[in-house]
Amino acid sequence: MKTQFEVGIIGGGIIGQSIAYQLAKEGVSVLILESNKIGNGATSAAAGMLGANSELENNDAFFQFAKESQQHYHVLRDELSQISQINIQFVDKGMYKLAMTDAEASALKDVVKYHESVEWHSKEVVLESEPTLSATIKGALYIPEDGHVSPYHVCAAFSKSARLLGATILENTPVHEIKKTVTNEYTLSTPVTDFVCKNIVIANGVWSGHFFKKLGLDAGINPVKGECLSIKSNDIGLEKTIFYDHCYIVPKGDGRFVIGATMVEDDWSTVPTIGGIQSLIEKVTPIIPSISSAQLIDTWAGLRPQPIDGKPYIGQHPEGENIYFATGHYRNGILLAPKTGLMIRDLILNRKQNEDYVKAFSVNRLQVQTMR
Amino acid sequence: MKTQFEVGIIGGGIIGQSIAYQLAKEGVSVLILESNKIGNGATSAAAGMLGANSELENNDAFFQFAKESQQHYHVLRDELSQISQINIQFVDKGMYKLAMTDAEASALKDVVKYHESVEWHSKEVVLESEPTLSATIKGALYIPEDGHVSPYHVCAAFSKSARLLGATILENTPVHEIKKTVTNEYTLSTPVTDFVCKNIVIANGVWSGHFFKKLGLDAGINPVKGECLSIKSNDIGLEKTIFYDHCYIVPKGDGRFVIGATMVEDDWSTVPTIGGIQSLIEKVTPIIPSISSAQLIDTWAGLRPQPIDGKPYIGQHPEGENIYFATGHYRNGILLAPKTGLMIRDLILNRKQNEDYVKAFSVNRLQVQTMR
Amino acid sequence: MKTQFEVGIIGGGIIGQSIAYQLAKEGVSVLILESNKIGNGATSAAAGMLGANSELENNDAFFQFAKESQQHYHVLRDELSQISQINIQFVDKGMYKLAMTDAEASALKDVVKYHESVEWHSKEVVLESEPTLSATIKGALYIPEDGHVSPYHVCAAFSKSARLLGATILENTPVHEIKKTVTNEYTLSTPVTDFVCKNIVIANGVWSGHFFKKLGLDAGINPVKGECLSIKSNDIGLEKTIFYDHCYIVPKGDGRFVIGATMVEDDWSTVPTIGGIQSLIEKVTPIIPSISSAQLIDTWAGLRPQPIDGKPYIGQHPEGENIYFATGHYRNGILLAPKTGLMIRDLILNRKQNEDYVKAFSVNRLQVQTMR
Amino acid sequence: MKTQFEVGIIGGGIIGQSIAYQLAKEGVSVLILESNKIGNGATSAAAGMLGANSELENNDAFFQFAKESQQHYHVLRDELSQISQINIQFVDKGMYKLAMTDAEASALKDVVKYHESVEWHSKEVVLESEPTLSATIKGALYIPEDGHVSPYHVCAAFSKSARLLGATILENTPVHEIKKTVTNEYTLSTPVTDFVCKNIVIANGVWSGHFFKKLGLDAGINPVKGECLSIKSNDIGLEKTIFYDHCYIVPKGDGRFVIGATMVEDDWSTVPTIGGIQSLIEKVTPIIPSISSAQLIDTWAGLRPQPIDGKPYIGQHPEGENIYFATGHYRNGILLAPKTGLMIRDLILNRKQNEDYVKAFSVNRLQVQTMR
Repeated sequence: MKTQFEVGIIGGGIIGQSIAYQLAKEGVSVLILESNKIGNGATSAAAGMLGANSELENNDAFFQFAKESQQHYHVLRDELSQISQINIQFVDKGMYKLAMTDAEASALKDVVKYHESVEWHSKEVVLESEPTLSATIKGALYIPEDGHVSPYHVCAAFSKSARLLGATILENTPVHEIKKTVTNEYTLSTPVTDFVCKNIVIANGVWSGHFFKKLGLDAGINPVKGECLSIKSNDIGLEKTIFYDHCYIVPKGDGRFVIGATMVEDDWSTVPTIGGIQSLIEKVTPIIPSISSAQLIDTWAGLRPQPIDGKPYIGQHPEGENIYFATGHYRNGILLAPKTGLMIRDLILNRKQNEDYVKAFSVNRLQVQTMR
Repeated sequence: MKTQFEVGIIGGGIIGQSIAYQLAKEGVSVLILESNKIGNGATSAAAGMLGANSELENNDAFFQFAKESQQHYHVLRDELSQISQINIQFVDKGMYKLAMTDAEASALKDVVKYHESVEWHSKEVVLESEPTLSATIKGALYIPEDGHVSPYHVCAAFSKSARLLGATILENTPVHEIKKTVTNEYTLSTPVTDFVCKNIVIANGVWSGHFFKKLGLDAGINPVKGECLSIKSNDIGLEKTIFYDHCYIVPKGDGRFVIGATMVEDDWSTVPTIGGIQSLIEKVTPIIPSISSAQLIDTWAGLRPQPIDGKPYIGQHPEGENIYFATGHYRNGILLAPKTGLMIRDLILNRKQNEDYVKAFSVNRLQVQTMR
Repeated sequence: MKTQFEVGIIGGGIIGQSIAYQLAKEGVSVLILESNKIGNGATSAAAGMLGANSELENNDAFFQFAKESQQHYHVLRDELSQISQINIQFVDKGMYKLAMTDAEASALKDVVKYHESVEWHSKEVVLESEPTLSATIKGALYIPEDGHVSPYHVCAAFSKSARLLGATILENTPVHEIKKTVTNEYTLSTPVTDFVCKNIVIANGVWSGHFFKKLGLDAGINPVKGECLSIKSNDIGLEKTIFYDHCYIVPKGDGRFVIGATMVEDDWSTVPTIGGIQSLIEKVTPIIPSISSAQLIDTWAGLRPQPIDGKPYIGQHPEGENIYFATGHYRNGILLAPKTGLMIRDLILNRKQNEDYVKAFSVNRLQVQTMR
Repeated sequence: MKTQFEVGIIGGGIIGQSIAYQLAKEGVSVLILESNKIGNGATSAAAGMLGANSELENNDAFFQFAKESQQHYHVLRDELSQISQINIQFVDKGMYKLAMTDAEASALKDVVKYHESVEWHSKEVVLESEPTLSATIKGALYIPEDGHVSPYHVCAAFSKSARLLGATILENTPVHEIKKTVTNEYTLSTPVTDFVCKNIVIANGVWSGHFFKKLGLDAGINPVKGECLSIKSNDIGLEKTIFYDHCYIVPKGDGRFVIGATMVEDDWSTVPTIGGIQSLIEKVTPIIPSISSAQLIDTWAGLRPQPIDGKPYIGQHPEGENIYFATGHYRNGILLAPKTGLMIRDLILNRKQNEDYVKAFSVNRLQVQTMR
């Protein structure tokens, strides 16, 4: 078994796989160490919405980064299918952010003034295009760019492509310890063996907190559990993703609709509860009344890694160590995975970076701000 | 392939399998023709409650029959395990029929006067024994005899035992037509081949209506769809089945709790709907508040075969044909399967019958009553 | 419940759904009666290969029909996604029909002479493009047009599209009897109710035999059970479908490889057996040795409806009744579904037909030939 | 959240749960920290054979311990069902260890001389009792005491009982570090929080190696992957467990037969491979030929924790720390769980111990032997 690598990535979710893919494509020798199964955590719990416009509210570096990442899915769809034959189920039919009250309607109409990529659709226009929506809606913001993918398929496609390009990917392999060697490399201790890597990337989502602490950094990441359900109905002919009050209904290309997600803070369990499911049903039924006669297909839950200020940590260790962070993607891991992979690749390969992004996602941004 | 049998049974649910088992035990050559999969219909949709005392309200022949059938599960548990090695998951820890209002409490206290096998338990006694129940209950009727089994396992055990005792059991084999031969036998036409049987038994639940009509009988059977869900929680330590307002919570021996069931008339679909699940959650949460944090495991639905007067049809064709009926068991198929198997066996083998039962379950009882 | 329809289709597999879709698109009122669940039979058991060139050997009407049907998937992909949002998972990367011996190689090289759409690839070319294939191959016939779809998704997309266009689709609804009314319509008796239709289509695959007989026709259809398995492996990077000795390995867009299928005659069970699985493993391991370390995902079986001469029955009742047949598609149901839907639509709507196809698939072609 | 406990157990498999149950029963405050899901590792991969007599060959302390543990399942069956309502599926019908050659027959006949609890059964006797076995067998050793349980149910019953008796059980909670406090307690660092415990127990199977090392102990544990499959067949009426050449067929009370298990050294993946499944099929088919027509239900794999000398580590840290080990149970985790729970309980509570067991399972037994 090979035990020396250029880059060792801790965490085999969509973020780690995206990084591994981009590095393997450049011929870099990469190792992924996943303590459980590939994509088994927050990745497969996500609905796969690419909500750059719907989730983010300020026109800042974070928003630019998200838009570029969303855009890069057009490239990845073809690239990954070419290499891995896996179809990432990219659907590009836009989203309706609903207004159910007049106040919500006027707030959304305001958004149109500042965002050029969105439009206000009146109730009549919305119901013509999406007749299963309740007649009590007041209209909707139409966001053509916010599509969706299948997180499971994206992660599998990254992973298989990385593997076929030479990456080593190990499941059931927790990293117990990171130690620096005398030659300034890093030893990753695992039950399987010790691996030695020139660079390491911490990409294990809500489980990253431990490594921050061990590496002398104080960047908290808290779990926010999200519960989801999927349904099926031949009578619901929804084309666009529907978004209302933190709740979404995503029409998947296999005929299911994914409905999510609850927000449960500081709960480390990944069990979808009866109470959570009930609250989702109560939230979506007024929006699409015919959901009452749809079939429940599945329920699940995952842990979103939430940093204190809601922005991911993507960057190098502040003291110049060859340790990189790519974690804390909170509600936006699927959206941000493509660009995170590219940015970490460029950091490791010492390529030119967008300094706005480096600043926005730096690991010690909060301490730095405090000091000012 | 053998095509001549003493008895041909149409329907491979728990009723048909119980009959096949009893006949095979007597050395009779038996054939079961199941249009779908063994036990795939109402059988596996049931929760398995043996609610002789809780479900039935009059001390009549039907009640006697139900009690004997319930009792016979004690025999079957050992017999079937001996032959098939399958454990029918018989649990014999009784039931609490709850009172949530004072009016319900006094109604249940009245029951104690007439039924010797039940007791009234005060709120304090109930909560001591079942502390996860809501403190808002008013007490409960304790019914020690109403236990439960796993319908899937009972049906599988009957089926495997019958098979090992020589029965022929065919899945995916609908019976298209029944024709009488010149030798007074019956030809059952199926896609596989034509089978010739001296006696036939109609035991295909809600799908039996067709055969009644074809055989010149007017005994309607309507579907009443029941939706169920199962949950899991390490914090709910329930010993007894809980019953309230047609809703039950059954603690299964594998750690799950089965919660059921809705009653949807004239719906032939077997899809558990979002609306049905929501109504069950709303019904049980006030009874066991901690259910809110339990995990949803599964949801399903089945079609109960409901005869007009709610009683099953168990008996011979009124015109003396060697055609027998064992269908229309409505909410009580699992409870009544053992005794139905014994009764049909005795009818076919011309053994002594309890005439009260023959009358109570006769196929033309409604016409006969009308004529009087 | 609506009980009068222009067209009543018996059978809710891919064939029935394709017909319903084409008719609903023309505004015809359509009813589908499915005795079990939509697409639950041979449809979802199929691997979805569109093997017009690989499966068929003569350049006859059947082959032309198959090629046109294959071609029509390009149209359906977009049409069905537009209406139902379901992605039929059409993959269009061709097939390798392998030669493992010199004799097989020269036989395949001969094919190139007669078929313009295929090429011979030498061992080196094949291994360059598909390096996981065994180095013991002798080369392969490259068939660029033979792609694949996901049968489940095609059937779901037809079904949902038909439904959204107005079709009525009932599950759990076997048709017990077809009777002609005095107004020359047809009454379809079902447990739910009696439906009256001006035209009926028999499209229930291997279960159609009964209706042929009842309608006075002698066109046998026998089951040929096929067992399949699916596997997953990050180390197998297959792009094209691999075909050898009736066995195929289809790389699906979700990362699975579907391997099939056994041929078990006159077996009505749909259980994949240990022996069948073993035989498939023994067949594919020499072709792709690394399959040994792949993960088994699933196993299943279905019943192919085999007519005596291997060609489907697609056409009108020979005596001019408004009864149509669309069944007996044997190994090619997925391939032929699009064109079958179009042809039955045209027959019912009295549109111009290709007479070669009418003759080739006529219900009484065998009797007619015998008479000649 | 409570963060102070008498005992903290690392590992929520059957071993950790057994210990937690015994301690909770004594009123000790217990915490279980499981990095994944309860019982998700080697526990649920096991077939549940209680092979004290069949697996162990010497009449030593290990064998005595195994027999007592096996015996204790009779107690646990009732105790755990009483508290948790979960049925551990204990089946007590014995085992046949087969001879397929004359040499094997005479070896097994020899065993009878030394073991009083076993009998030699001739081919005729064996086939009379188990007629589905191949007629080519030469006879079998009958071991009446070696029954089986359902590991999933045992673990769930321990876990739920411990929980209801007051234990705290956390899933998704890896322990990153163990540190001693100034008051001689132990801090367990986890992503959730830091827990402080007076005693700690290392019970995480193959993942324990890391803690041994960190605690300055040199007791290697290697993974030996075992692949299994389960099948179903109405034609196989097996009563006893069948054992031959490291391969077993266990008749489960739900109608399945569990067949296992391969032995793959130093493989950390938990994926059941096509090659592994094939080898199991090839091994059992000659023993029970009708398995060829059985239905494959499921396949899975798990990692057995193998210590160098094959015996578990059950005992206290050699330097008198309040750190206990209960790991390395290799092929016998289910068998040894009951007695392991009792022994660790007694060690922690300073109760009298069987010194033979203390010696046999001590953590530094190998070093001690070397020194002598």
